Amino acid sequence: MTNKKEIFAGIIVIGNEILSGRTQDTNTKTLSIWLNSLGIKVQEVRTIPDIEKIIVNTVNELRKKYNYIFTTGGIGPTHDDITASSISKAFDLKYEPHKEAMSLLEKYYKPGEFNEGRQKMAWMPANANLILNPTSGAPGFNVENVFCLPGVPTILKSMLGGIAHKLVGGDPLVSKTINLRTVESEIAKSLSDVQNKNKDVDIGSYPFFRAGRLGVAVVLRSTEQSKIDKCNLEIIKFVKEKNIEIVEKD
Amino acid sequence: MTNKKEIFAGIIVIGNEILSGRTQDTNTKTLSIWLNSLGIKVQEVRTIPDIEKIIVNTVNELRKKYNYIFTTGGIGPTHDDITASSISKAFDLKYEPHKEAMSLLEKYYKPGEFNEGRQKMAWMPANANLILNPTSGAPGFNVENVFCLPGVPTILKSMLGGIAHKLVGGDPLVSKTINLRTVESEIAKSLSDVQNKNKDVDIGSYPFFRAGRLGVAVVLRSTEQSKIDKCNLEIIKFVKEKNIEIVEKD
Repeated sequence: MTNKKEIFAGIIVIGNEILSGRTQDTNTKTLSIWLNSLGIKVQEVRTIPDIEKIIVNTVNELRKKYNYIFTTGGIGPTHDDITASSISKAFDLKYEPHKEAMSLLEKYYKPGEFNEGRQKMAWMPANANLILNPTSGAPGFNVENVFCLPGVPTILKSMLGGIAHKLVGGDPLVSKTINLRTVESEIAKSLSDVQNKNKDVDIGSYPFFRAGRLGVAVVLRSTEQSKIDKCNLEIIKFVKEKNIEIVEKD
Repeated sequence: MTNKKEIFAGIIVIGNEILSGRTQDTNTKTLSIWLNSLGIKVQEVRTIPDIEKIIVNTVNELRKKYNYIFTTGGIGPTHDDITASSISKAFDLKYEPHKEAMSLLEKYYKPGEFNEGRQKMAWMPANANLILNPTSGAPGFNVENVFCLPGVPTILKSMLGGIAHKLVGGDPLVSKTINLRTVESEIAKSLSDVQNKNKDVDIGSYPFFRAGRLGVAVVLRSTEQSKIDKCNLEIIKFVKEKNIEIVEKD
């Protein structure tokens, strides 16, 4: 939408438990907000089952399409955790014990507790770069632009700090939200006019219901504050003409 | 995983607000659970931006791959609601006012209130089949195997009852969850052995943290109860041998 440098990411959520509806994915939201803050825009999310062929194909399709790929899930110790072996296949790398990960985990567990299941968590694509895990020991990893993180939301969150320095972001996105006491159809035409005059600002319109009252959140996004300010003024102008109340959402 | 008839669905979540992290998607979970209950397995979810070309390509790729496709979002009155026009392009159909939808909406609103923005919600691919909306008037629609629903979760939910009769499901999936007071690495090998002996049962293992205590939920899924029962017995056997406590999750 702008002439400035844009950096895009894709997220691959790996897990039957999300597709069956058993588990509510929240990692997408966590990753998106964090990536936005680094000037990286999430352009696509794919949620796929624990099936090797599908993981391999999805990773290989998306890693060429976006600057960065983040996978969540499937790096634990059990038989359904097949992310590391699938990533090895995708990059045609050997799937093998990672020396540094082995030594990290060996120190993490008590003597005698570093069993076969736990050792599996140190098997990775050859020469993968580790992503340290301050919460529960077992590291994630990245191969080139593909970053593999766990599915448990609290653990995933705790690992993001260790990745930020590996990413090069674009111009950070600025956003502004205007909450209006109206319904979408009342402002649709005016908003469309503003969008047509400001093609390089991304204008979204989202109805909300709160405490039994309707409203619309108009969200402006751009890499340039001045463009957002211009749009904002144009919106405030028609909002006043229409006698629509501007509200705090909460 | 079984020899029985399997019916697959794909979900396409359309909306910049999900990709930016502003909005938490919950429609995937709602649709997945509902589709499972009809014997339809969600095999893939794609979350994509409000960009026509991407919507058209995604719909055209997935509608050939799965029995049913569900889209959420982008059918409201504003400029960023482009699902109906994009679906028209995907199927090479005219995008035009839908007579029945027009008449429904005209009756829904008070005289004089059926403005241009609201009329836009009755524009659809030619000859689309309506999906009635008991909550807020504006209908969804389907063209062949592609069902287009709104993004607002409460409205989406209220419309599912009007679709069920249009879908033909496969054998319904049965599932059983066994909650264990253990960690994944303690049971990884035994669970893997059970999976290898029961290839047509889908066995998932999901760690949980609750009230400061760790546990693992083992989830068995199959279209045949007898196969689940057999797996269950094999798991209970090794759980007892290992002196692992079986717990209620809550």
